[in-house]
This record gives sequence, C-alpha cells and structure tokens, in this order.
Amino acid sequence: MSGQVGERISAVLGNRKLTLLIKHADLLNVFTGETYETSIGVYKDRIVYVGDVAEAPSASSTIDAKGLTAIPGLVETHMHVESSMVTPSRFAEAALPHGLTTAFADPHEIANVMGKAGVKAMVDDSRGLPLKLYFYAPSCVPESKAVTSGAQLTPEDIDEMLGWEGVWGLGEVMDYSAVLNGDRKMSRILESAAKRGVVIDGHAPLLTGRDLNAYIASGAEADHENFTVETTLEKLRLGMYVKLRGPYVLDAKKFADALKTLPHPYNLIFCTDDVMPDNLAHLGHLDYACRAFLEAGMDPVEVVRSVTLRPALHMRMPHLGAIAPGRVADILLLKDLRKFTIDLVIANGVPVAKEGKLLVRIRRRVLDGSARETMKLGPLGLEDFRVEPPVKNGPVYVNTVDFGESNHEDKGQAFAEMILTKLSRSKVDVVDGKLSLGDKAMVFVFERHGRNGGRSFGFVRNLISDGALATTVAHDAHNLLVVGTNREDMCMAANLVIRSRGGIAAVRGKETLARIRLPIAGLMSDRSLLEVSKDMEGLRRAFKTMGVLDHPYMPLPNLLALSVIPHARITDKGIFDVDGQKFVPAFAN
Amino acid sequence: MSGQVGERISAVLGNRKLTLLIKHADLLNVFTGETYETSIGVYKDRIVYVGDVAEAPSASSTIDAKGLTAIPGLVETHMHVESSMVTPSRFAEAALPHGLTTAFADPHEIANVMGKAGVKAMVDDSRGLPLKLYFYAPSCVPESKAVTSGAQLTPEDIDEMLGWEGVWGLGEVMDYSAVLNGDRKMSRILESAAKRGVVIDGHAPLLTGRDLNAYIASGAEADHENFTVETTLEKLRLGMYVKLRGPYVLDAKKFADALKTLPHPYNLIFCTDDVMPDNLAHLGHLDYACRAFLEAGMDPVEVVRSVTLRPALHMRMPHLGAIAPGRVADILLLKDLRKFTIDLVIANGVPVAKEGKLLVRIRRRVLDGSARETMKLGPLGLEDFRVEPPVKNGPVYVNTVDFGESNHEDKGQAFAEMILTKLSRSKVDVVDGKLSLGDKAMVFVFERHGRNGGRSFGFVRNLISDGALATTVAHDAHNLLVVGTNREDMCMAANLVIRSRGGIAAVRGKETLARIRLPIAGLMSDRSLLEVSKDMEGLRRAFKTMGVLDHPYMPLPNLLALSVIPHARITDKGIFDVDGQKFVPAFAN
Repeated sequence: MSGQVGERISAVLGNRKLTLLIKHADLLNVFTGETYETSIGVYKDRIVYVGDVAEAPSASSTIDAKGLTAIPGLVETHMHVESSMVTPSRFAEAALPHGLTTAFADPHEIANVMGKAGVKAMVDDSRGLPLKLYFYAPSCVPESKAVTSGAQLTPEDIDEMLGWEGVWGLGEVMDYSAVLNGDRKMSRILESAAKRGVVIDGHAPLLTGRDLNAYIASGAEADHENFTVETTLEKLRLGMYVKLRGPYVLDAKKFADALKTLPHPYNLIFCTDDVMPDNLAHLGHLDYACRAFLEAGMDPVEVVRSVTLRPALHMRMPHLGAIAPGRVADILLLKDLRKFTIDLVIANGVPVAKEGKLLVRIRRRVLDGSARETMKLGPLGLEDFRVEPPVKNGPVYVNTVDFGESNHEDKGQAFAEMILTKLSRSKVDVVDGKLSLGDKAMVFVFERHGRNGGRSFGFVRNLISDGALATTVAHDAHNLLVVGTNREDMCMAANLVIRSRGGIAAVRGKETLARIRLPIAGLMSDRSLLEVSKDMEGLRRAFKTMGVLDHPYMPLPNLLALSVIPHARITDKGIFDVDGQKFVPAFAN
Repeated sequence: MSGQVGERISAVLGNRKLTLLIKHADLLNVFTGETYETSIGVYKDRIVYVGDVAEAPSASSTIDAKGLTAIPGLVETHMHVESSMVTPSRFAEAALPHGLTTAFADPHEIANVMGKAGVKAMVDDSRGLPLKLYFYAPSCVPESKAVTSGAQLTPEDIDEMLGWEGVWGLGEVMDYSAVLNGDRKMSRILESAAKRGVVIDGHAPLLTGRDLNAYIASGAEADHENFTVETTLEKLRLGMYVKLRGPYVLDAKKFADALKTLPHPYNLIFCTDDVMPDNLAHLGHLDYACRAFLEAGMDPVEVVRSVTLRPALHMRMPHLGAIAPGRVADILLLKDLRKFTIDLVIANGVPVAKEGKLLVRIRRRVLDGSARETMKLGPLGLEDFRVEPPVKNGPVYVNTVDFGESNHEDKGQAFAEMILTKLSRSKVDVVDGKLSLGDKAMVFVFERHGRNGGRSFGFVRNLISDGALATTVAHDAHNLLVVGTNREDMCMAANLVIRSRGGIAAVRGKETLARIRLPIAGLMSDRSLLEVSKDMEGLRRAFKTMGVLDHPYMPLPNLLALSVIPHARITDKGIFDVDGQKFVPAFAN
C-alpha cells in the first residue's frame, strides 16, 4: 500500500519496523478514564499500536517505561506567544520540555504593531517546529477606537487570514460591547468565521445572563476570563468551553471543589493565556496549571482530559489529544502523575525533551526583517516630558487613573480588583509652574508606529512610587508608555527603550535598574527564554524598589493603556473613561 | 447588526421577538450532567437564550413545559435509509416523531444499484427536510469482487462525492481485508478522506489486537459492529467511537453493566444501522435504543449524551447536540425521561411532532426518474430455474451454505452465530434427473442491473423450508435473489418482484402470501412508512408459515448474497467461500 496510511498499516502488521516502541507504560486512557500497563507503538509521527507488549510489532528503537505514566502531549488553546517575550521558535524551545506539544496562539499583540505582516511572520517562524503551533486570526485589532495601533485589521483581512495555512480559528472576540451593540464591522467578522465553520474563541469577563447568552449566540465558543466560580459554572452550563488559566489569577482549590459537584463537566479546559518569561522558566506552562489543580484535589483523569482530549475536541482536531492508533504521537511519560513531573516528552513521534532538558536542536528563524523596524520614534528630550499646568501657582484639579489595592484572599477576585482602575479627581498644588505630585505619578504615551506622532499625558495613582518605567509592552496597541515620578528618569528610560527598538527599562535616580531589549516588534527577543527570563527577574526586583504595582501573572503597567478594561485607561489619545466611552482632560479645571 | 448573527443577538437582547419560548422545562444539561428548571428561547432555527424565565426575552409563541424534561434532538451517525424501505422524505415523516432531528446515512444500498446517481438522488430528496439528513460517501461499492453490482464507485467518484454539499464523511469502510491487505484502491480512498479531514466511519466486526490497531490507524474513527462487551471495550480504549445498535443485536443489560465500570466512557454512542419498516413503526428509532439502555439501568445522562452531544462531537458539528445559545434548536420535551416518552419534538426551532403525530406537512419529492428503472430483467420462465445434476440417477455431492441455529441467550452472540454461515458438503439423491432436496433449498441469483445477465445457482440449508422467496433486497449488490423449495413457486415469486420493478414476494403452493413493492432502485417505496410496515408485517407472517429464517433486526435471506460476511455466500457469480476467497461449484463431484 502506498502513502502514509499504507505505511502505518504495514508497520502495525510487522511488514515495516516501528520507529519507536514504548514498553510497560501505565497508560492513562483519556477515553475511558482507566489506567493500565500497555505498550505504545509509533511509526514516524503517528501512534499506530496500543496493546500487549507480547503482541507488539518490532521496532527500531524502544523505551522501557516501567513505572512511568503515559499521557497525551498537552494542547494549549488560548495563549499569546508574545507574552513570553520570545519568538515562536524560542518559545517552542522553552515550552516543549514542559510537555506542550500543540498550541493555538492568538498573535494579536504583534498584529497591533504590524498587522497581517506580523501574523504572517509568526506563522512563518512556526512552520516545521516540533511544537505544533497554530494561530488564530486576531479579531479585534485595534482593541477599540480609543487607541492608535500600528495596524488595523479589516473584516477582509481577517477573512483572508482565516484561509491561511497555519491559521485555525478566530481569535478571542474581546470587544464584547461591539458584539452586543451590533457593531457592523464585528458582525461581518463573526459572519465570516461562522461561514468558514472555524473555532471562535471568546473573551467575556463580566458577562452573565442575557448578555452572556447573546455573546454565545454570536458564535463565541470559549472563554478564558474566569475569575469566579459562579460565572464559570454559568458558562459551562451554556456550552462554552471554559478555559481555566491556572493559579495565577484564580483559586484552584475553590474551582476544583465546585467542579466536583458536576457529573463530568464536558467542556472544561485549562489554558495559560499570558505566561511571563520568568514564570515559564521557573513555574512552567500548562503543566503548572495541571500541578495546581492536582494539588487542589482534582481527579487526575479530569486534569489530563482538560489539557488533552477536550482541547482537541474543541479545536476540531480529532488526530490530537489522545494515545490511540492513528493519532499524532505526542506522548508524555510522567514520573509522578499526581505531582505532574515529566520524565520524557515525545512530539510527533520524536523524543524532544528529557527531565526538562531539550534533546533536539531547534532551528532559529529570523522573523521578517520589518519586524525589527517597528520603533518609529527618534530620541526624546526632556522637553517631551514637560507638563504645563493651567495655573502658575495654586491648586489645580486633575483627573487620575487609580489602580486598586486588593487584599482579597481569593486570587481571582484580587487580580480583578487590581486591574479594574477607577477615574478620580484630586487636587495638586502648583508652585512656580511646577507640580507637586504627592501620591500621583505622571504618564506619557507616545504613538510609536509612525502613524500620527500623537502623544498624551495623564496622572496615575498606586502604580509607581519612585523612578520611571518605559515600555513598549503596553497592551494592545503597544505604544511607548512611560510612567514615573520625575521627568529626568522618564526621559532616560524612554530613550533606553527607543534605542533598543522596543522593550522595557526601569530607571531611578538616573540609574538603570533593569532593562529588557525586545527589538522584534517591540515585544519579543530572539535570545533564549532563559536569558530573557533573567532580565525579567531583574525587572521584577527593580519594581520592588521602585514601588511598581506588580502581579505574578503580569505587571500592572502593561495594562494601563488597554482601553477595553474598565474603568479608566490612558492611551496615546488621552485619559479614557471606559464606562463613559469618552476622553477626559488631565487637568480637570 | 445585519445577518443571522446580528438577528440572534438582537432577539436575546429584546430588540426583536423570540420566535419561541419554552418555559419551566427541566433541562438535562449534557455539558454538566445536571438537570434543573429553566427556560429556552429560540429565534428562527437557533437557540439563543437559556436561563431564568423572569429574565427571558419576549416571544411571539410560548410553550409551558412544566414537568417535562428537555433534551437535545437525537443525532444518528450510522444508518441506512434504504433499510426502512422508504425514500428519505418518507423516512423523515416516520422518524421525526421519534425525536430524530439529525441523521448521517450511508446510501451504499442505492449506490450499489445506481452509483453516484443514486447518492445524488438521496441527497436531493433530503434537501430542506425538517430532519437534517446528511450522507456519507459510500466507500465499498461493490462490497467485493465476488459480486456484480449495478455500479462501481472509483476513488475519484468518492473524492468527488466528498466535495458535495450534503455529503459529510466517508461511509463505513466494510472491506477491512482490503484495508489490512494494502489494497491500492482502498488506500487511495482512505488517503483522500484523510486529506479532506472528513469523518471516516468504520466496520470491524471481528477485528482485535494488532489487526484492530492497524484498521484504526488507517483512519477509521467509529464502529457499530459491536456484539461482545470485550471487543467493545477494546475499541473504546483505542479511541474509536463505539456505536451500540440497541437491543436487536446486543444485550443492553450486559453492555450497560460493563460500561458502568468505566469512569465516563468518552466515545460511547448509540446508533440504529438498519431499521426495518415494521420496527420503525412499532418500536421506534434511536429512541428505542435509549429506552432499552435506560431499562438496562444506564444513567440517563449517559444515555442522552450517547445520542446528542457525543455524536455531534464525533461528526465535528459543534452547532448540534446540545441545548445552548447558538446551537440549532432541536429540542425534545419528554414526559418521562426514564421511559423516554416523547411529548414534543422541535426541529430547527419548529414543533414538528406531538405525542408521536407529525405536526407538519413534508413535501414529498420524487427521486430522479432513473431510480424507478433499475430492474433490467424481463419475465423469467420455469426453464430459468432448471437445475441440471451431473448424473441422471444416483447420489451426487453438493456444496451447501448452511445458516446457523443459535440458542445463545446473549442476543449479540445469537445474531452473530446466525449470520455466520458455513460451507458444507452433503449427498443428494438424483432420480431420473430430478433432485431430492431433503433439508436443502435452492438458490438462484440473477444479475439484474443489465451488466452481464449472469446468474448462479446453489444450495442452502436452514433458510427456508417451504415455498419461495424472491427479493431485490439482497445486500449489497441487490441482485434478484430467489430461494425456495420448488421451481414453480420460485419462478412466480421472481416474476412478482420483476413486475413491480423490485421488492419482495413470498409464494407457497402458487399462492402469493406476501409482497412488498419497492420500485425505487428495487429498495424503496414512496408510500408511507406505515403502509410499507403493514406489508413487512405480512411478510414476517409468511416467513413463519414458510419456515424462513427471520430475525427482528433483519430477515436472514437479505444477507445470503453479502460476500463479505463469513464463511460462505451465494452471489450472482456463484457460491463464494469467503475465508478462501474463491468460488466453489454447486455440485461437488
């Protein structure tokens, strides 16, 4: 028999050698929930035999897996490569040892900077990696009209990308207001995805009841914005694939307990969303979520199904997510299922990582050259950080964006309270034209895509107490965001970032405390994840001395310019009242 | 918002009226396994709201479902319309009241008679029916080289059909020997289905171990040929969708008990395969399987999932199989979940049947005219049934195909033992050129498609004891099969069938005991199911008086010419030794 099907069959029947035979593994069967000792035969990239070792075909290579538990390779359905600040090939290097063998990523960060060309660069860099990396077509670029992004994606662009090889669904439909308000552009995007029958990923943090029903009826199939047990159960009941992000932003124990009350929740999935480089290096990827839910007392079968079979069903990829004949040979051998310690990772039939160490060389690609030319700002001077109060002396009223402080014991609630800013009004004294900031810091956002050269200014509270932070990792438009308490440090931090064509810099008292160079789209590096992670650790240390509001999941300054998160943000266009959908001036007089 | 998505959203948000609101239903939630009271809002063909009745949008029509259990409409993934002996539109009329709202049918019976034109006629007749009827492209036409069918489907034909609207997968890959033997044609068919990423339905009654692994590795995703618990569990573990056919051919209690030992069998499905017209009229369709497994003690949630959500996942149709926003509004309201008594059937948002009675008029189509012209035989004479023994007087040895008798208490085993014939050799006395048949009956098979005018003769045991049966329902080639104990009755029965352009006739002592006219491809009638069922009941009564081997699932003569069932068959080409893959002569001398 010719062709791949024929080769597989003859390998099972012994007319050709298996390329790999794993003997004596304890297979956790995701279909039946059983665990039993068996052998697994692989021919090239596929599993072709699962059964008695005595009956197994002969193989050119064998692994004795006595005492190890075999589970399918992990499938991630909601994440952003850019959040780990490395290119797709570098991400693959780092994530494979954690058992990730397939990922569906939404490249909306790079798309905000570079548009279709950015998506294409990501797809190209991912081709042929041992980590199967698929992409969603980003649905909301820019995130709203309140920002200037580097690019806009039209419904036609999105429809075109949905037809690309390597693009496998519509990315998280974040602009749920546009969905519910009947926005014409959003409607066209949803219709085109529906017509193509592709997976539509969602984003519905606060929706419930009728609004949530309407959002799901629009076609959104999944949601990862799950902070509370109640809304999570509501989404499960309404047929959404609910993606729990692991323990950064939710209380695993609380969720594990609540889910135990359901007789098999069919559409429960774990995902990571954004994994900072240091977290990826030290805590892991999807495996970290698995460990957390296992520790929280969730049944191992449910944990494994949530990262293998169910995500494969969700993504309509029946050849993934299971150890069975005909499926892609993505297999993890675990030393300890309950601790989720991975001994060996096999991807596409090839052992790729052992005890956390990569076994294969991953060819580094260079993203399209234009990806390194996205910083369109020249050096800034102190005058670019000058603030002109409306009075020379005396008190003025200012609008400030206040970050919350949260002592909530529930992690999900705490993170939610931290990111939900509020707009407030307070008094600032001006003496000889100089502001006395008090508990406030200054914010400058510079449009950096060469679109209009716009810039804005505002005040923020509870975000930084000393020094300056400049960053192009400023969701979603990724303009140059500079926050700080004095203009000297702010100017210096900004120039450090501009000089490295993007990245992050922390400066205090004219001293550079930390710096991450991210020359690729101002978001990513092509250095190794470990190197970038070290920089990130340095940045987190700097944050502590500078009093920058940090969170293990993501530093809060990254979200200051994100105009779709309530209740107030500062974009390149000014201070944005998210609830009122209008801009307010920095000086309120 | 324009378009369908926009309309649905505005209906949920109250800017447009729902077309239907079902209040106070006890929803069995297939995702979570819970049952709770809720309301279900429908806009046109979609469910758009599931939630509190107090919060529900207003509707132009409401149903009070207090005390009724709401489950999704039933989804059938393995069946043959032709087995019910009526056209697709007539089948829809009959099956909708039983809660069937979607079916995937393999039209391989008509394809054996008419080829692609037959498949096209079925697809055309099904367009726009309230029952969503999709078809598989038949993979094995003819079933083997041991028969002359009316048509052959090449790999190119199959690939073409897989591209047709209304065709949704590759039909049961019955010729598992061809798969395992590396047959080139079969390989091309499997490769083309794999390339298109369509569902591949299987058929693997006797396979186990390495052979079963090889078969699954070929791409076959599902199997309905489940007679024993052991092989069924093996298939479930190997990731096949296992389709249990209900209680005709298996012991529901035995299966229900065995399945209870598995922690949620992910890929368990029920199907019907072949439903004779009388069974459809009196016992039901998929609902009959549900009742049987409920009676056998299976958890109602598992029963409902096996005919709704799981088949939808198997068929990669995420908009089916659940009551949730965005899904197709196929809803059953049950009076009694445990007895599976259906009060109301809603298909595509429209109530179509109440208490077993159809509420809508189904437009009858006429299948393409050529479907009525498939009987290419003219009247036969007695001389066509003449047998010439090799000797004028004395004993001769003959090869006989012997049907089994089974008293096995397990229904699956019993049916399996009945259909597995054996080839044996016995002595017949000839006196003056006349055979003294004893316990044997004669079999004539006439090629009736105008292909080669071939005919064959053989002996059979334990199939009929008196009179004659003629039928064009003779799987899979559907030639004219005539079995009987004397040539007068055989000739008369054959001519009755020829005159009605196909069908079945039972004659004894020159008296017509029963007759079913099936002028459409010799397989179907466009009369109502109830009328055809009455004929079928008459036929079953005739079978009793004539000693014809019958089985509630299917009369055994229907399978005498099916050259892929072990161990011996009689086709238009002669007596076929299935194990030896060779023909043997009627007279063994």
